[in-house]
Amino acid sequence: MVNDRTVASLGEFGLIEHCFKELGRTDVPGVSVGIGDDAAVLLVPRTQDLLATTDTLVEGVHFTSDTDPVTLGWKTLCVNLSDIAAMGGEPRWYLLSIALPSTTSLSWVEQLAQGMNEAGKQFRVTLVGGNTSRTSGPMVLTLNLFGVVGHERALMRSGANVGNRIYVSGTIGDSTLGLRHLQKTDQDTSNNIDVETQYLIKRHLRPDPRIALGMALVDAALARAVIDVSDGLLADLGHLCRASGVGADLDLEKIPLSAAARTWLGNGGQEKWKTLLTGGEDYELLFTVAPGATDQLPALAANLGLPLTEIGVISKQEGIRLFEGGQPMVIQESGFRHF
Amino acid sequence: MVNDRTVASLGEFGLIEHCFKELGRTDVPGVSVGIGDDAAVLLVPRTQDLLATTDTLVEGVHFTSDTDPVTLGWKTLCVNLSDIAAMGGEPRWYLLSIALPSTTSLSWVEQLAQGMNEAGKQFRVTLVGGNTSRTSGPMVLTLNLFGVVGHERALMRSGANVGNRIYVSGTIGDSTLGLRHLQKTDQDTSNNIDVETQYLIKRHLRPDPRIALGMALVDAALARAVIDVSDGLLADLGHLCRASGVGADLDLEKIPLSAAARTWLGNGGQEKWKTLLTGGEDYELLFTVAPGATDQLPALAANLGLPLTEIGVISKQEGIRLFEGGQPMVIQESGFRHF
Repeated sequence: MVNDRTVASLGEFGLIEHCFKELGRTDVPGVSVGIGDDAAVLLVPRTQDLLATTDTLVEGVHFTSDTDPVTLGWKTLCVNLSDIAAMGGEPRWYLLSIALPSTTSLSWVEQLAQGMNEAGKQFRVTLVGGNTSRTSGPMVLTLNLFGVVGHERALMRSGANVGNRIYVSGTIGDSTLGLRHLQKTDQDTSNNIDVETQYLIKRHLRPDPRIALGMALVDAALARAVIDVSDGLLADLGHLCRASGVGADLDLEKIPLSAAARTWLGNGGQEKWKTLLTGGEDYELLFTVAPGATDQLPALAANLGLPLTEIGVISKQEGIRLFEGGQPMVIQESGFRHF
Repeated sequence: MVNDRTVASLGEFGLIEHCFKELGRTDVPGVSVGIGDDAAVLLVPRTQDLLATTDTLVEGVHFTSDTDPVTLGWKTLCVNLSDIAAMGGEPRWYLLSIALPSTTSLSWVEQLAQGMNEAGKQFRVTLVGGNTSRTSGPMVLTLNLFGVVGHERALMRSGANVGNRIYVSGTIGDSTLGLRHLQKTDQDTSNNIDVETQYLIKRHLRPDPRIALGMALVDAALARAVIDVSDGLLADLGHLCRASGVGADLDLEKIPLSAAARTWLGNGGQEKWKTLLTGGEDYELLFTVAPGATDQLPALAANLGLPLTEIGVISKQEGIRLFEGGQPMVIQESGFRHF
């Protein structure tokens, strides 16, 4: 704790001045007017389209009251960055709206801002406005992120065709396994946990949005349909298929898993696969590629230093079918439901 | 009540489909991809800058649990529209993030959407995305509104010069008087209240953002500095003066008041003036005009059908000084504080 003061001691404007003004970066293009006026004034390059997304994290739903605020700041920005990545965009500017109890400690907010600043620096995005409000209840953090993408080049969910190969970046299921560990373990024991568990927890707390991959998919005009995996692989593949009016056949043996997830999976089984494929918060990109273009994927993966794995094929028949060793497996589809 | 179902019966995606999809309008330009993908894809005209603002309404802070949801929907959109008006912008697109208890009735959300739809129709703005979350605590509604304005033509807080005349649109203090009435009166008696009180309540619940005025000020290149009056006339004039590095002298006798507010004011006095000038939520525009250009104001006011009243002058000396009948009056400045 840097100090014991609460946000009430600063007031709304003081809090913004003290904690958030430094999040306005000068190395991000297109900011004519940033924090401090009635609205931000932003310049979208003439050859580009604007991307706009928003995501909310609620205390008690998306994070707990003892979540490290630095980590939370990072994650709040990164879950939005993942949406821009899924459109193939270059992220630029964000607005931040936070509703806080007046008893929130100032150092907590300072650390939240620190985590956002770390992500902002890494992904070159800048705060351009927002607001702070008091609430009597759980904290609510809402972030709006803007990006740019070449005119009519944005990657949509709706372009998948029958016969397209289905790819996913990175590995699936790590985040939900990390969350499971956090939910059943006292975080003070984190020094005693093994390397694999540490990896899983880091994957949950510090997602790495696939901005470079999204932009590369636009440059190479490779992807027919793209979505980020936030609700769980099966749920998000379902969104993509419905938007495209197609179905999918997935081969479980091809699903890319980390060494830690593979250790946990052991001999597999329906319940364990369900955990991995429906847990969510992977923040990987799921995309489809025409069969004639898949030979470009290995070089792209090597350039990015990121595994890109073919896991199935788009089919005409609606719905998602899973196969393990050629045998169908039934998993009740269930993404993260909010109500 | 249309029905007794709760939002939990629909789930996140069902709720969006059922309640909010209709807020996506087809008569608003620049929407390439709206609701339903990872991000909205929007087209900013080549000759225009993008304006982006966000505002949050928290249950128990900005509205009560028995606030009419149709009214709340209207107001949530209109407080953001007021920020775009203050920049001289033409509003276009919005994102909506709502955190709701799972016990919230579906009809409540339907009515919230109805109020937003009414404002969206009147001001030609369209929903292009957002999200719904569960919360265990008070509802939190965050809206992000985007507008466009001619390149480098946005109206800022920072351009006021010494000698500029200070103008305000409409009338001041109605909203806070309306709120006072709502706070002390059972709303079920609304059929029995007089016309003036009904007017004050309407001014609080149904603010009319001054979009046309903001756009006219840009067209005429008339205003040196502009802000909307949301925190209270004195607080917002203070923001404008600090951003411009100037002070202000205000003449209380010139402050435009409605007949209802004038009735309430009676013989005046420091406490009553304080209520009117610090209450906030007027959603009028406060702006400064070079002394040589003030002769254009009467025609502009007539064209808009909106009073534009000179209330004082920008001075070199920092701070705001109030005069009544040529005598100084001291009011402790205090805008709405959140913590």
